Amino acid sequence: MLSGLCPMQRYRISIAYDGTSYAGWQIQPNAITVQERVEVAIAEITGDSPKVHGSGRTDQGVHARCQVAHFDLQEKTDTRRLRKSLNAILPADIRIIMAKCVPRDFHARKSVVSKEYRYFIWNSDIVPPFLRLYRTHVRNSLDADAMAEAAALLVGRHDFAAFTANPKRVVESTVRSVTELTVVKKGSEIVIRAAAEGFLYKMVRSLAGHLIRVGEGAVTPVETTAILESGKRTARVPTAPPEGLFLWHVQY
Amino acid sequence: MLSGLCPMQRYRISIAYDGTSYAGWQIQPNAITVQERVEVAIAEITGDSPKVHGSGRTDQGVHARCQVAHFDLQEKTDTRRLRKSLNAILPADIRIIMAKCVPRDFHARKSVVSKEYRYFIWNSDIVPPFLRLYRTHVRNSLDADAMAEAAALLVGRHDFAAFTANPKRVVESTVRSVTELTVVKKGSEIVIRAAAEGFLYKMVRSLAGHLIRVGEGAVTPVETTAILESGKRTARVPTAPPEGLFLWHVQY
Repeated sequence: MLSGLCPMQRYRISIAYDGTSYAGWQIQPNAITVQERVEVAIAEITGDSPKVHGSGRTDQGVHARCQVAHFDLQEKTDTRRLRKSLNAILPADIRIIMAKCVPRDFHARKSVVSKEYRYFIWNSDIVPPFLRLYRTHVRNSLDADAMAEAAALLVGRHDFAAFTANPKRVVESTVRSVTELTVVKKGSEIVIRAAAEGFLYKMVRSLAGHLIRVGEGAVTPVETTAILESGKRTARVPTAPPEGLFLWHVQY
Repeated sequence: MLSGLCPMQRYRISIAYDGTSYAGWQIQPNAITVQERVEVAIAEITGDSPKVHGSGRTDQGVHARCQVAHFDLQEKTDTRRLRKSLNAILPADIRIIMAKCVPRDFHARKSVVSKEYRYFIWNSDIVPPFLRLYRTHVRNSLDADAMAEAAALLVGRHDFAAFTANPKRVVESTVRSVTELTVVKKGSEIVIRAAAEGFLYKMVRSLAGHLIRVGEGAVTPVETTAILESGKRTARVPTAPPEGLFLWHVQY
């Protein structure tokens, strides 16, 4: 048996990317994605064509400070050289920040213990040009205290059906455990931090969209619990734009 | 006389721009420049077509945290509305951060008291994707102390002929007074700050290029004085790339 003679080696990589120019992480027809770029680069360097499994998808335009992925290669290779070689041919908006060998039972998606996203809002009249690709611009002055109050109501194990954008998709359960949801304002910047074992489709952007509505005074924090309990997606939960969202950290 | 009946009003604007997509500040044929974009926007909003005078040029790809310019309009207009209207039609990589009325004797170039540039180097293996357009990448570990030592030797009133990239151009004098030239390292980032009443053509990038050579150990700080005194441009003074350079502050 070939696999016995030449055991596969599993690799784990951490990837930072500027999502501006990509149709998200996951490979799809007729669009350039980060996963595709990484798979093509690995194939070019190793001569092998492994599928690269990410910790999860990121949507079109969403960034990653640290996405994690794994793949298997037929032959063992030096991880430092692998990382350097990949960065040499990948575009500058995708960087392999770490590569290492891992046991075969490591799985970038299934082994996840917790994920953290951060959503960055620029809340003033003018976004500095150098941040324009990485901040969601909200002109109306937001009440960060009200946002923090509403956020606290969403922490815990709940059915987040009202905060996912894909009612059509069949999912086993829309119950998720949100371990952290905080809102911090510092100057013109408001940062929403969201951590959970896992998130539903577009859940972080839905949470951010709702919190922005609360910050604008269009929805009161007390309505947040009612929306959560309704289990129904409404206009009080818009999907916030992708450019402010970063996959920040994946814990295993 | 028309000008007597309808006195011109002079306006001063502060402009931040991401220079990545522009052939610099100054209007030129067959290339898109920041000055052109601003002039076109002003014409579209006011119906007037004033020339916009900047504090000085910035080269292709160089950024401005704060460029200053002036122009005259036939009629007086509300500066807050002018700023908002300009930002509404300008691309997001050019922002008018301030607009105000100034006396007719204010001149964005001639009235300059001092200018400050900052040059940002990312000195590690990997540039975070989100900084790639705004940092000059130097992989070799730089000796920031040696750079600071060499920088200190260049402060003061000197003939900077060895640090300008344009020997062909006739200039009245290549003597300039550098009031500040410092090098500070913080983590992977090295920042060169340069202030002077005025700089020669490509002088800041030449100073940065030289200091990088010093940091790499290719040139010793003691050679810096000899290069300065030679008045001759050599390979020990390369022009550093534009992406790390920001026009930071113009003082009047």
